[in-house]
Amino acid sequence: MSKKLTPREKDYSKWYNELVIEANLAENSAVRGCMVIKPYGYSIWEKMQAELDSKFKETGHENAYFPLFVPKSLFEAEEKNAEGFAKECAVVTHYRLKTDPEDASKLIVDPDAKLEEELVVRPTSEAIIWNTYKGWIQSYRDLPILINQWANVVRWEMRTRLFLRTAEFLWQEGHTAHATKEEALAETEQMNNIYAEFAENFMAIPVIKGRKTDSERFAGAEETYCIEALMQDGKALQAGTSHFLGQNFAKAFDVKFASKEGDLKHVWATSWGVSTRLMGALIMTHSDDKGLVLPPKLAPVQVVIVPIYKGEEQLNQISEVANQLVKDLRAVGVSVKFDNRDTHKPGWKFAQYELQGVPVRLAIGPKDLEKGTVELARRDTLTKEFVERDSVVEKIQDLMVEIQDHLFGKAKAYRDNHITEVETFDEFKEVLKVKGGFISAHWDGTPETENKIKELTKATIRCIPFEGKKEEGKCVLTGEKSSQRVLFAKAY
Amino acid sequence: MSKKLTPREKDYSKWYNELVIEANLAENSAVRGCMVIKPYGYSIWEKMQAELDSKFKETGHENAYFPLFVPKSLFEAEEKNAEGFAKECAVVTHYRLKTDPEDASKLIVDPDAKLEEELVVRPTSEAIIWNTYKGWIQSYRDLPILINQWANVVRWEMRTRLFLRTAEFLWQEGHTAHATKEEALAETEQMNNIYAEFAENFMAIPVIKGRKTDSERFAGAEETYCIEALMQDGKALQAGTSHFLGQNFAKAFDVKFASKEGDLKHVWATSWGVSTRLMGALIMTHSDDKGLVLPPKLAPVQVVIVPIYKGEEQLNQISEVANQLVKDLRAVGVSVKFDNRDTHKPGWKFAQYELQGVPVRLAIGPKDLEKGTVELARRDTLTKEFVERDSVVEKIQDLMVEIQDHLFGKAKAYRDNHITEVETFDEFKEVLKVKGGFISAHWDGTPETENKIKELTKATIRCIPFEGKKEEGKCVLTGEKSSQRVLFAKAY
Repeated sequence: MSKKLTPREKDYSKWYNELVIEANLAENSAVRGCMVIKPYGYSIWEKMQAELDSKFKETGHENAYFPLFVPKSLFEAEEKNAEGFAKECAVVTHYRLKTDPEDASKLIVDPDAKLEEELVVRPTSEAIIWNTYKGWIQSYRDLPILINQWANVVRWEMRTRLFLRTAEFLWQEGHTAHATKEEALAETEQMNNIYAEFAENFMAIPVIKGRKTDSERFAGAEETYCIEALMQDGKALQAGTSHFLGQNFAKAFDVKFASKEGDLKHVWATSWGVSTRLMGALIMTHSDDKGLVLPPKLAPVQVVIVPIYKGEEQLNQISEVANQLVKDLRAVGVSVKFDNRDTHKPGWKFAQYELQGVPVRLAIGPKDLEKGTVELARRDTLTKEFVERDSVVEKIQDLMVEIQDHLFGKAKAYRDNHITEVETFDEFKEVLKVKGGFISAHWDGTPETENKIKELTKATIRCIPFEGKKEEGKCVLTGEKSSQRVLFAKAY
Repeated sequence: MSKKLTPREKDYSKWYNELVIEANLAENSAVRGCMVIKPYGYSIWEKMQAELDSKFKETGHENAYFPLFVPKSLFEAEEKNAEGFAKECAVVTHYRLKTDPEDASKLIVDPDAKLEEELVVRPTSEAIIWNTYKGWIQSYRDLPILINQWANVVRWEMRTRLFLRTAEFLWQEGHTAHATKEEALAETEQMNNIYAEFAENFMAIPVIKGRKTDSERFAGAEETYCIEALMQDGKALQAGTSHFLGQNFAKAFDVKFASKEGDLKHVWATSWGVSTRLMGALIMTHSDDKGLVLPPKLAPVQVVIVPIYKGEEQLNQISEVANQLVKDLRAVGVSVKFDNRDTHKPGWKFAQYELQGVPVRLAIGPKDLEKGTVELARRDTLTKEFVERDSVVEKIQDLMVEIQDHLFGKAKAYRDNHITEVETFDEFKEVLKVKGGFISAHWDGTPETENKIKELTKATIRCIPFEGKKEEGKCVLTGEKSSQRVLFAKAY
């Protein structure tokens, strides 16, 4: 763990990859594009899950579980959805292996165990779920259905990166069914808002809410709302999406309900999800050249106590103070670890906890015992101070709030400073090259122009922001009329 | 929901299937052998997960996540494990679908997207995990590794039944690595004990702890410890297993560590798991002809309040009392639902909550308002009584404990009454036919005899109980010498 990370300035991408590995968050596996999420990374994901899950339940959603596999005939039922995901899906074709007749230590696929119908490993679950909802919905009394699922999904991406783009990832997917279009749209918006609140208040990641253009929309959706974040290298990251699916899936699976008035109508749908990709957003929003920086609300360990001692007697004296602190901090809901391992030196521990982003480190040595102090180090500012032992608990309670706010404020200042309004395509290219970030520009509303800009600059329209001011202008590429600025950026 | 269940006496298997569907626990899906776990069923599973997860964490385990897929070459590395699971595994062979050239509305497997190496959908994760641990373990300082994973697994079973045997199921699988055999054996036993405590204290299911015979052991294990429960129809159900894997996986994947003394040794391993099968055990231990019976510790809703009223004014008066009760019950940690829907009649609601196993039902009508009472019905005993409104909260707090104990006691009495010692094979067959349950009999210790008995009676050795008294005797089939009785039963 003495290895230093490549500085972000030098190679941001390399820094990211090294950090994920060195901080024990995740690693690549023997399966192409699939990751192992290590305990420390998974414990952060569990914190995210718990918070999101309670937000979902507060808004009336229940969890359920649907099959991993989607029979091909169901998969292809909603045409656009199928088209969007067919190109990169894992397909199960057989249900047995047998001993290789040429080498008894090997196994081969048993040709006699071919499935009648191939099964697609779910890349997303609309098809299997709407085929199920068909049996659940007869009347308006059966609506709304508000269900969420925590699951693994597989998309056979060609270029993968830990957390950001992996062949298998973990996510939650909400799938709701409604009697009216208005209700479904309200749900779509509500869930996008929940994602935004979660990102900002819990992960300390400022996001912009907006809707996607036709070409960036989820395959099978009528509208995709999203939250977009900005990473430290000036690239955007889509952190969550909420889709208004219209009646597309209800029509594909023939899901109708009898209204109060007695006539049969197709059901309206939404789906929404966030994934382990959020781990990538978390890392790239707050961390620095020394490693991960975690907002207190997400940190599996908020405070670590490291004893600095020579000999057992000193350790015993320090342990007495430390154990009392552990008790007092836990009593006020702060998670704390006393690392009294004798297998590692204090300097190694300091570096390790910096690498792993523990928000506050307390060090206690013989001098601290004399003076009744502890040394307190903040991970976010890398500052140190001595604190009276009696005021440590209160100080840390305050710090938990202060650090959370500070990280959000810092990320927001960076983000706000990286939204640049441009009027010409030269400016557009110049800003993209020199500064990065979001470019707020007029666009004529056509997919052709959107594509052309993507070809020329690799920047895509991240969203049409909900809070963008309505303003007449001219498209940055074609000079055609435009009534609102949209946000362009290079993106993960 | 007015449909009555087939009585257990008439057809136990049909009763079970109907109950799972009618109580909204789960249903079959469009995918052969895969189930949909519905919100009510899933909320019970979530309760189990939360309790188990905290027990795992209390004993030092952490959660992590490993890939869904196992490359064929890893899958076959541990020979016995591979042999055990190869016969029933889902195999991914391709990573893309394409439009059918003969019918543009259809998709076919793209022959150009064949994987170089087939991927097995994990039936269990020893192979992928031990291949990963290889990179994590160099020295004794890296041990022990105590990891658990919550995941879905797939075993291509030919005959499936909701919860009991499904092609895909949810489970947790613990995988630990240790420096010594003793430590690994202690872990194996500790986890089996945790399962037993969980089953008995949380699910109110009495279990017998023991070890499996060679032929019933997990493929790749040196020892399999288990907990065995008894269902109401006299058949046994394996409710959890904990495996001592010896050095089998460490050898298959070449995982060695440098000991304190500096020499290289193979690592010792355990794995242990329980699955959604526990839902089946829960149902078949406590439920009756009216539906599910839930122990309070597992019930998503512990108390339901049903108003009995004519007209809005009565409803308003009742609601006032009910809402106060809801508040008071929640304040003492009891989960409660006030079902004031006007779309369903009280009788329908009574039947529905009986079907879904809600432990306590309160009904409040106009007469109760006058008298200051509520009608309290217990699901487990199907008894009713009137309770003074002022003592309802205390009464219910007591009942939560009493019902939990009563269910365990009842199940234990049944189970204890269905362990029959036999001395002859005629007795063996007679007991199996007339009474069912566990048969405690001497066995000569050979797989041949075990197999012969299975062939003749369909009964298998469920376990060699840890607490069985050592006792000389003669094998029930062969008359050979035996030093301990083992437990036979027909099993799920």
